[in-house]
Amino acid sequence: MISYVAPLRDLRFVLEELLEHASLTLPGFEEATPDLVEAVLEEAGKLAGDVWAPLNASGDRQGCRLADGKVTLPDGFIEAYQAYAEGGWNGIGVSDALGGQGLPEVVASSVQEMLHGANMALGLCPMLTAGAIEALAHHGSDTLKATYLPKLVEGSWTGTMNLTEPQAGSDLSRVRTRAVPCEASEGDHYRLFGQKIFITWGEHEAAENIIHLVLARKPDAPEGNKGISLFLVPKYLVNDDGSLGERNDVVCASIEHKLGIHGSPTCTLSFGEGEGAIGYLVGEEGRGLNHMFTMMNEARHKVGIQGIGLAERACQHALAYALDRVQGKSPRSRGGSECTISDHLDVRRMLLSMRARTDALRALALYCASELDVARRADESSAREAAQARVDVLIPVVKAFSTDQAVEIASLGVQVHGGMGFIEETGAAQLFRDVRIAPIYEGTNGIQALDLAGRKLQRDGGAALANLIDDVETTAQALAAHPELAGLGEALALGATDLRAAMALVLEQGGDPERGADAVQAYATPLLTLAGHVLCAWQMGRAALVASAALETSDEPFYHAKLASADYAIRQWLPVGRAQRAIIEAGMMSLSSDALLAS
Amino acid sequence: MISYVAPLRDLRFVLEELLEHASLTLPGFEEATPDLVEAVLEEAGKLAGDVWAPLNASGDRQGCRLADGKVTLPDGFIEAYQAYAEGGWNGIGVSDALGGQGLPEVVASSVQEMLHGANMALGLCPMLTAGAIEALAHHGSDTLKATYLPKLVEGSWTGTMNLTEPQAGSDLSRVRTRAVPCEASEGDHYRLFGQKIFITWGEHEAAENIIHLVLARKPDAPEGNKGISLFLVPKYLVNDDGSLGERNDVVCASIEHKLGIHGSPTCTLSFGEGEGAIGYLVGEEGRGLNHMFTMMNEARHKVGIQGIGLAERACQHALAYALDRVQGKSPRSRGGSECTISDHLDVRRMLLSMRARTDALRALALYCASELDVARRADESSAREAAQARVDVLIPVVKAFSTDQAVEIASLGVQVHGGMGFIEETGAAQLFRDVRIAPIYEGTNGIQALDLAGRKLQRDGGAALANLIDDVETTAQALAAHPELAGLGEALALGATDLRAAMALVLEQGGDPERGADAVQAYATPLLTLAGHVLCAWQMGRAALVASAALETSDEPFYHAKLASADYAIRQWLPVGRAQRAIIEAGMMSLSSDALLAS
Repeated sequence: MISYVAPLRDLRFVLEELLEHASLTLPGFEEATPDLVEAVLEEAGKLAGDVWAPLNASGDRQGCRLADGKVTLPDGFIEAYQAYAEGGWNGIGVSDALGGQGLPEVVASSVQEMLHGANMALGLCPMLTAGAIEALAHHGSDTLKATYLPKLVEGSWTGTMNLTEPQAGSDLSRVRTRAVPCEASEGDHYRLFGQKIFITWGEHEAAENIIHLVLARKPDAPEGNKGISLFLVPKYLVNDDGSLGERNDVVCASIEHKLGIHGSPTCTLSFGEGEGAIGYLVGEEGRGLNHMFTMMNEARHKVGIQGIGLAERACQHALAYALDRVQGKSPRSRGGSECTISDHLDVRRMLLSMRARTDALRALALYCASELDVARRADESSAREAAQARVDVLIPVVKAFSTDQAVEIASLGVQVHGGMGFIEETGAAQLFRDVRIAPIYEGTNGIQALDLAGRKLQRDGGAALANLIDDVETTAQALAAHPELAGLGEALALGATDLRAAMALVLEQGGDPERGADAVQAYATPLLTLAGHVLCAWQMGRAALVASAALETSDEPFYHAKLASADYAIRQWLPVGRAQRAIIEAGMMSLSSDALLAS
Repeated sequence: MISYVAPLRDLRFVLEELLEHASLTLPGFEEATPDLVEAVLEEAGKLAGDVWAPLNASGDRQGCRLADGKVTLPDGFIEAYQAYAEGGWNGIGVSDALGGQGLPEVVASSVQEMLHGANMALGLCPMLTAGAIEALAHHGSDTLKATYLPKLVEGSWTGTMNLTEPQAGSDLSRVRTRAVPCEASEGDHYRLFGQKIFITWGEHEAAENIIHLVLARKPDAPEGNKGISLFLVPKYLVNDDGSLGERNDVVCASIEHKLGIHGSPTCTLSFGEGEGAIGYLVGEEGRGLNHMFTMMNEARHKVGIQGIGLAERACQHALAYALDRVQGKSPRSRGGSECTISDHLDVRRMLLSMRARTDALRALALYCASELDVARRADESSAREAAQARVDVLIPVVKAFSTDQAVEIASLGVQVHGGMGFIEETGAAQLFRDVRIAPIYEGTNGIQALDLAGRKLQRDGGAALANLIDDVETTAQALAAHPELAGLGEALALGATDLRAAMALVLEQGGDPERGADAVQAYATPLLTLAGHVLCAWQMGRAALVASAALETSDEPFYHAKLASADYAIRQWLPVGRAQRAIIEAGMMSLSSDALLAS
């Protein structure tokens, strides 16, 4: 089993050289110096590589077990989680006002990438906690915040998101879990009754308490979305002095047998098998879905980051194998000497495809993180709003495109291994299994595409995406003017043109009162895929300019590799994405015919 | 768990309507009337759907166990295999001279598709036996044939292919297993010593005997390919009267823990732990690889068929789920009523993408089978040679493109299921796991691409592929002249132009004595991918013409569905393939730089 090495050089390249540490200049990040950031990344890399990564394969093999309502995690997971919490990593991106370290999102995202790359199953636990922190911080009462936030931020308690029910998945308006107000004499809490499924880290013993955030309906609530409220349901009730009290009436009824992330317990939680699980309203009645979505936007970014972490690991794994496996003769060594498979160009094509895509996805996701930093922290409200508009467009792309691509990258990783890739001991197969959930959860990638082509594009007439395309064109021009990168500039400009045309078509047809909803649905995924390719190629165009400039004074192989990566991303990978314009132009309205459902 | 329904209507559409039962007119197939073929397909469909398919999930869960050298198969597998053998299915495509039923390859391939779709793990057993039959029939001595063929053809013995060793995978020149000739007084057999890995169905109790075909070297053999010979090593020695004698010195040392096809035992076989495994030379000394490849070409076609079987099952599985799962509101029903997810156009896009690709892959693979029939049976040698030239080009495409696409189709199948797709009980994940081996075995897809772009294209200067492209253009013209299908004709013609240009470029650069080998390696996979798209789109163009004609007198929804499928394949899927031309033209020679191996 090949171990995971935190990609510090690659992360530094993006943070320092591509993004020029812009986040560090924002108000509130004064203490986050470049040196501090470097030290943080190095320490996180050690935690990821030395503590989390070695448990990845054993966690997969052992999986989780449920007995008597208790979930037993794989060996070492509790200790590895606690090392993370005790190291203060849980609060890294949480503002200092809430007890966190208040580092920029670009840094927090970089750390998360490493942790997910090291051990995705374990990484899910803090990812869900972060969502709970976010929801509580924005919508919780002062009492709830005082009681729950400090423990969640320090990581001694973990959080979960309870959305899905058997009949309510992508369509949460169908949620049926009931929240019954208590008698006034008892207090202002609720009793919850219902069943939630697919609850990530819904039950475990790695933390003293688990704080469930639960979507439910009051008995008199209206049907549909507007009847849904958000409740906080702790596993153990919390006494007024902060100590833990009785076990609440929520139990883990079963855990799922999944394709991957076996080390992450995916639970069915039963609320109120007895007298009802005690819960507290978070935010406003009937605004549960809105409150959940506050948090979900960022969770979606994190899932994109997670995909990139897995893609990075798949790259490392495949490269290490290819550099080691002797097979065949190099077509370039006429002497006919033996070679490792990394000498075969078809294998290199796969390795480069994996590396270039991973580089590009990382650059785009961290660019999005830096815009998140601006949206939160910039002095000028106009700067914040402009950045937020970009973030809104970028997040569905980062989530869906990164995870779709990560599945393909992991699949290529299996392929590079040949027959060994299909053997579980090798480890490539686990990455392929684990990452397959990422295009599904936190809103399927189809939902992301609808978010982009529907809500995000229609509400501003495509202004924010058009703005991004302007920047793509600026980069294309800079490349075109460069003596050695002109070909990249031309290729990138074609991508920008295609994306602009496709967007215009989706806006035009999507605005049709008769068939607009159909057009948005039919073209959503092709549009997102095209946007992903063009925006990633853009970032790699910027990477090429930076690497080329660096090579004027350096001969570091790293920069040559980034140039190769950029060349692949723009000239070999972008054309596949550009085909999506033709697909949109060809029209998909035949989808509304029912004939295709005939079997 | 949704069961498998044999796609009889789809198979009949290809055999009768697209291929017009051309194989049945060939000499030697006089008894294979359309009625007989129909009856055979129906019976095979029953075996697949009623007997094999119900064991697919349980076989995956139980897997195989090894204890004391014996492999225990999943429950029911022995009976299901025996039902297959006793039904005479094993000899369906074997010529009557060898005791088979001598049905055309198009029919045998159709049957195989159903069996693999029903239970891929079980389907592998007869697939390997077929390879052994082929190798023996072509290269075995009369004695070997008389002793082993009848039992193999009837399926009471099974066969294996022993190629891979730990150090010898894609590069079989590295085979080290030794075959030591016996003293002349003992007979003319050999004693084999060595270890073979990844031996599919290498040990089991479903048949009375297992006949291993083994690549090995005589002690005095030269290094490299020319020192390798092919040997037959039975699990039980066969007495002169045909009865089984002693256990041979070959044992199953271990079985692999794999990503998928858990019901198929993948064995490490040790030959000669004692005094040596008795083996018999098959064919000529030093020609083992050639003899193996006789058989391998057809085995590659069968792996393509296998991919299609899995893709078909994934389509059925996803469609059934989508028609059942209520979620959201139909964007087309303004009343806001609830709908199944099959009403959402983004889900339909996935379903149609799966269906169209599966239809197209099947049509191409069965077209290839019909050319195989011509190559074997046509009266005129010129017709046989022309067909063989097409087969030679088509087989790497059918193997690699069908299996690459099948992985994507199975992945889309998971996606259609949403969160349920990641839960093993649903069954979509098993298809995704099982099919992942198909791009790897029987020559990785990279090896297939090298076969196409290297040997197959270079040896005739691309004549056979150019011939196929001529036919694509003829179909494009027919579409263009059709009042309702002109758009398909234009789109298909663009694909033909791209493929011709890409082929010319690969031939030109591949012929360069300096860098030719590099160019072939670098462009092989893009070229194969482009060829796959264009040839599949061609078949769907033909399907559109046939369906459109049928709709003049019929209103069967099936034909409307095929039109939708053809529209998707040519206008939505082909553009993605066409991007490969740009990729080839952009040049991949940067792959020869070592910079990209820097990590």
